This record gives sequence, structure tokens and C-alpha cells, in this order.
Amino acid sequence: MTPAADGLMPFLAMDILNRSKVLEGQGRTICHLELGEPGHPPAPKVLEAVARALPDPQGYTSAKGRLDLREALSRYYTEQHGVSVNPEMILATMGSSAGFILAFHTAFRPGARVAITRPGYPAYINTLIGLGFDYAEIPVTAANNWHLTGPDIEAAHRENPFEGLLFASPANPTGAAIDRAGLADIIETCRRLGVTLISDEIYHGLDYRGPSVSALELTSDAIVINSFSKYYCMTGWRIGWMVLPEALIRRAEILQQNLFISAPTLSQIAATAALNERDYSEEQKASYAANRAALTAGLQNLGFDLAAPADGAFYAYAGISRFSNDSLAFCESMLEQAGIAATPGVDFDRVDGHGFIRFSYAGTRNTVDLALDRLKTFLAAGS
Amino acid sequence: MTPAADGLMPFLAMDILNRSKVLEGQGRTICHLELGEPGHPPAPKVLEAVARALPDPQGYTSAKGRLDLREALSRYYTEQHGVSVNPEMILATMGSSAGFILAFHTAFRPGARVAITRPGYPAYINTLIGLGFDYAEIPVTAANNWHLTGPDIEAAHRENPFEGLLFASPANPTGAAIDRAGLADIIETCRRLGVTLISDEIYHGLDYRGPSVSALELTSDAIVINSFSKYYCMTGWRIGWMVLPEALIRRAEILQQNLFISAPTLSQIAATAALNERDYSEEQKASYAANRAALTAGLQNLGFDLAAPADGAFYAYAGISRFSNDSLAFCESMLEQAGIAATPGVDFDRVDGHGFIRFSYAGTRNTVDLALDRLKTFLAAGS
Repeated sequence: MTPAADGLMPFLAMDILNRSKVLEGQGRTICHLELGEPGHPPAPKVLEAVARALPDPQGYTSAKGRLDLREALSRYYTEQHGVSVNPEMILATMGSSAGFILAFHTAFRPGARVAITRPGYPAYINTLIGLGFDYAEIPVTAANNWHLTGPDIEAAHRENPFEGLLFASPANPTGAAIDRAGLADIIETCRRLGVTLISDEIYHGLDYRGPSVSALELTSDAIVINSFSKYYCMTGWRIGWMVLPEALIRRAEILQQNLFISAPTLSQIAATAALNERDYSEEQKASYAANRAALTAGLQNLGFDLAAPADGAFYAYAGISRFSNDSLAFCESMLEQAGIAATPGVDFDRVDGHGFIRFSYAGTRNTVDLALDRLKTFLAAGS
Repeated sequence: MTPAADGLMPFLAMDILNRSKVLEGQGRTICHLELGEPGHPPAPKVLEAVARALPDPQGYTSAKGRLDLREALSRYYTEQHGVSVNPEMILATMGSSAGFILAFHTAFRPGARVAITRPGYPAYINTLIGLGFDYAEIPVTAANNWHLTGPDIEAAHRENPFEGLLFASPANPTGAAIDRAGLADIIETCRRLGVTLISDEIYHGLDYRGPSVSALELTSDAIVINSFSKYYCMTGWRIGWMVLPEALIRRAEILQQNLFISAPTLSQIAATAALNERDYSEEQKASYAANRAALTAGLQNLGFDLAAPADGAFYAYAGISRFSNDSLAFCESMLEQAGIAATPGVDFDRVDGHGFIRFSYAGTRNTVDLALDRLKTFLAAGS
């Protein structure tokens, strides 16, 4: 899997998904642990709201999105984070994906360098490359529980200065989440270095060691990106949101008008309803928490390197040094031979990812249990 | 309304829409002729298909999109255009909006110059600027029925060479559509100059002088962009598609994986159903055709410069030289005083657009009739 001349790489999780679908077409049953996708639909009242709206024409909304959605998001910030957010600073996006594109082009000009953690969500680096931005990688390590720190940022900036930092807590693929002091350290470091912080808060809510802290609690200078995909079980609905500093909101709105027009209307209606259904999301989270315990223990028993259950999200980023030093080949044979789809670490880390695999436990408990059974047989077969 | 330092301008139609919504909030009734939005929902069977799918989890699809959608699109090309298109060369997108982003970054590198017609869809120029591309404008004129020709392209290329040409037929805002010979001339000119053609076919189907010709009927080197927004009444669903040359499809797929993941799943399901409901779309088109006749005659009677009804789409691009030489100010007072929302020509043409206004007749006949009545009073009041 060689990158293109400009460094653009396929998102291997998607290629694994494609191959899984081919195998399923041949009658195989595949345990899907490759994508961060909840196994359940959104809450019943979300679907009811959509069904009610369906007979009406669903035209474009204003570029920022429906006001009722933005007002509901503003209430969410008051209730969940104790901060006041003006609905005019909120912009509904086509998933967090469009949020990244808007954030980069709002805050920077093509060619600007933006820092990300390594390992990290592969779309970060590929989106930066694909859009003509430069990037700097800040390594984080299992030894520090995959946490990013102010001194990490400072050291990387000294070596290779950057204008922006895109950072997630809880993080993908490690699930690492930082506490309030850790986030304050990152924000203060960025302020001191003149670095614009983009806080990817898509895994907020999926936190197993206490509620996630939003950057908005500590600063009004950050761009915050979030989505209904994970906590609200709405991946395929392609709906997320951004909160922007006052100095940037108008440029973001103009870019949205031109690049995207507006986010999908039915998905905006669904999202507005979803914000009232957080109890349902908490039920889903309880099942992820059970999966997390089972998968972590199971992988540890089988000999994977995994220090502790992750802080948040729904991923286990496990070392495979006992079995292989080629995570892509390992994932390919695990899929072909054992019918288990997982994502090779090289998706998240082009330097050290050959030694890791990401298992998602967003699916059902049955999937996790069946995968662990199959893994045991697969490893015993001595691959 | 001054552009930003880099030339980025707001999409004024969206600003007019925002102001309309404020006025509506104050109890005014506004005639909406500012946006290219069908007044009806999609066909009943489309909504039934969505309602059936609603209880299932709607996860990400493969990056290219659901195979059933791509196969249905392939059949559409066989039946409607007599050409064979491999479903693997088709990519479902978040509206044509995402299609433009993918097309530019697939075929070119940031900084590359792409030509567009003037007047043209404002998102073309703003997307190019916003993403860090350069642009060249090729003027088209009312004297030539707003048609683009090979010699126009050749002259512009001689003056200011470009790597790509993004071109729509039927066009926005003029509705100009070219015939097979005209399209062949454009394709041959691009081939000779080494220019990559991006054919925006979003208004296909909305053609009042015979069926539109797809670039795919004449070449396999063009990137074709299309959407379900207009002909299938699905603007807010944000679903479109691209057809790419074999040499470009893999890069486009990788960009889609990273920039967007996949198009909205329910919208893909709706789109698949919509392709079987073209009879419904033809009914809508018949009502646009009636609106077109009424609006054209009405505007001509009131003294607007409008040579003939447009070839396609659902727009009248009318000269206002009898009334004003400032189309933005004219649109603003027309909205405030008469409650008619239309789009100033400066949205589509920064050089000559001060003398034109675009009226959309995608809405109901009542809207068109009421707008003509109000316009008469407004103009009589001597503004």
C-alpha cells in the first residue's frame, strides 16, 4: 500500500470494509470491528421526528443550519458544559468531515502547516494532504497512555513550527482522554505559541472515566468540531457541527455557502431531536462499556499488548508484537482466514503502526465475543 | 459587499434567503424566486423507500456509495444517453457541491487555474478561491444566447492558459443549453488544448428544447458531475454523483474516503428509488415549463431585457437597464418593499452582473403570478 506522490493514502479501514462486503457476498459471516460505527439506529423519537417531516419538501436550510438545531446545541453547551454559546457561532456541517475542511480553510491558507498526533485519525493527515496543506506529526506513546501534553507540542513546534493543532480527546484510535488540567495545558501552550487549536470533540459522551471537558469551557479562541455520528448513533446521516470564534464565523459561513450550501435537512431535524434523547445514548454507552471490558480482557488473555481499557471512544489500540510486525498483512489474513475485520495500525501511524491493530467495540456484544473466539482459533493455527 | 482579501465572496442568494426568513419571522409573506429549489417533495415512492429503511441503522456506505445506486445510475446512462458506464467509475457525493471539491482535487493541484463561464454559478468561483485554486473567466453574452463556444475557450486560453474547464449545460443563471454539435466543439477544443473538462450536468432533464447531451456520449476523458437536487426535487437531501475517467477514479475514491467518508445513506436510498420515478419529475418539469412561459412574458411586459425563454434549468436571467444599474440595491429594495426575493446578477458575474437579476421559477405558479403582480406595483411606485 504505497502512498501517492503527494503522500495521499487510502483509508485502509474503508478498504477492509470493501473486502468484508465481498466476502459477505460469498456467504461468509464477518465480525465487523473495523469501523467506529454504533450497531444501533438513533433513538426512536429521532426516527419519529424524521418520519413526521418526510412528506414536506426538504429544501436547503440557511448555510449555518436550522435555528432550532443551533439553539438546541446552545442549550446543550449550557447544560452539559456550563458555558454560554451564541447560536450564531454554531454551524451545522455534513458530518465532522466537512467540519475539518471548513476549519482548515477558515483558519489557514493552503500550504499552512497543521500539527496532529501520531497515531491519529487517518483522515486528518489525508485531508490536510489532499487539500494542499502541510502537516507536522506529534508522537504520543503507550508509555504515557497516549496522552498529548503541552511539552510535546512545544518540542514539536520548536523542531518544525506549525500554525494549527488539530487534536481529539477522547482520541481515535487510542481512546486516550485528557482531563481538565491536561486540556488547559494544551490550550495555554497553543496560546503562547500563536497556534490555532481545532478541538475535535466527536467522542464526547463516550467517556468512561468522567465527563469530557470541552475546549469551550477554557477558551473562546478554539474551533470546536463535533458530530452526531458516534454518541447519537448517526454515522450514515452525515451530520455534525462546529463552534467558531467570533472572528472566524463569517468566513466559515461563506465557505459553507459555497462549498456545501447546507447540511442535509432531514439529518438536521434528526439531530435536533437526538439532543433530547441523551438517555438513549447513555444506554448505548453502557453496552460499549461492557464490550470494552470484555474485549480488553480477551485481547490481554490472547497475548495482545494492551495496558488498560481506554479512557473513551470505542476502540482498543492493541500491540501485536507477539504475533507479527506487519499489521496490514496480519489484518488481511485475520479477515480472510478468521472472518474478523479490524483496522491495521498503519492507518493511524505510518511510522510505528505496523505493530498495532485497532479493534472497534461499537458493535454488539455478540460480535465481540464471536471475534474473540475466532481470534483464539486463528492465533492457535499459528499465523 | 466587498470580497475578502483573497476574492472570496458570500453567495448572495443565501444572504437574500436569510433576510427573507427574518422578514417572514416578522409576518411578511415573501415570494421566493431567489433559490433554485423545486417547490415539491420527491416522488411518493421515494419517500416510501426512505420510510421503510428508517428503522435500520444507517451506517456509512462504501466511499463510492451503495452498489444498487451506482448500478441504477449505470442503467440510467444506458437508457437515457445510450452509453455504457461501469458502476465502478461512479461515485455518490454529498450533492454536486462535494463533487466539485473532489473533481478539483482529483484532477488538479492547488494553485492550478480552472476556467469557468461568466456569468456562472457563484459557487464555482468561490469554491476555486476558497480551496486555493486560480480561475479564469470566459465571458458569454446575451447576444450569443449565453452559449459557450470552442473559439471562446480558445481565445481565453491564449490570453490566460488554464488546466481545466468547468462548464454547465443547461447553465445557471442563464439556462443556456448547447446542442450536440456545440458540446462536441467544446470537447474537441479542450482535447486539443490539453484542458480537463468538468461537465456539470445538474440541470439535465430540465431541458425545454430537447434532451440534454451528456459529455459521456462524446468522450470518456471528462469528469461528469450531476445531482438529484433539481430534476428529482431533492435539494436538502444533499445527494449527487460523479462519473470519472478510469485514470482518476481511484484518487477520487481515496479523497472521498478521507474528505467525506460517504454520502448520506438515507439520501442514497432515496436517490436509488428516484431513478425509477422520472415520470414524476416530468410532471414537475411541465409545471416549470408553464412557469417559464408566464414569467418570461410577464417580465418582458414589465420592461425587463429578456430575449427569449431559456433553453433549460428554471431561471430567467433578466436585464434591468430600464430600472437600475445596481442589481444588489434593486434586489434589496424589491425584497424589503415588495416582498420578492430574487438574486442579483453580481452573484453570477462580478463584471457585468450589476445589470441583471436572476429569477427562479422552480416554485409554484402562484408564486410566479404573485411576484409579477407585486413587481408591477413596485415598478409603478418608481423605485
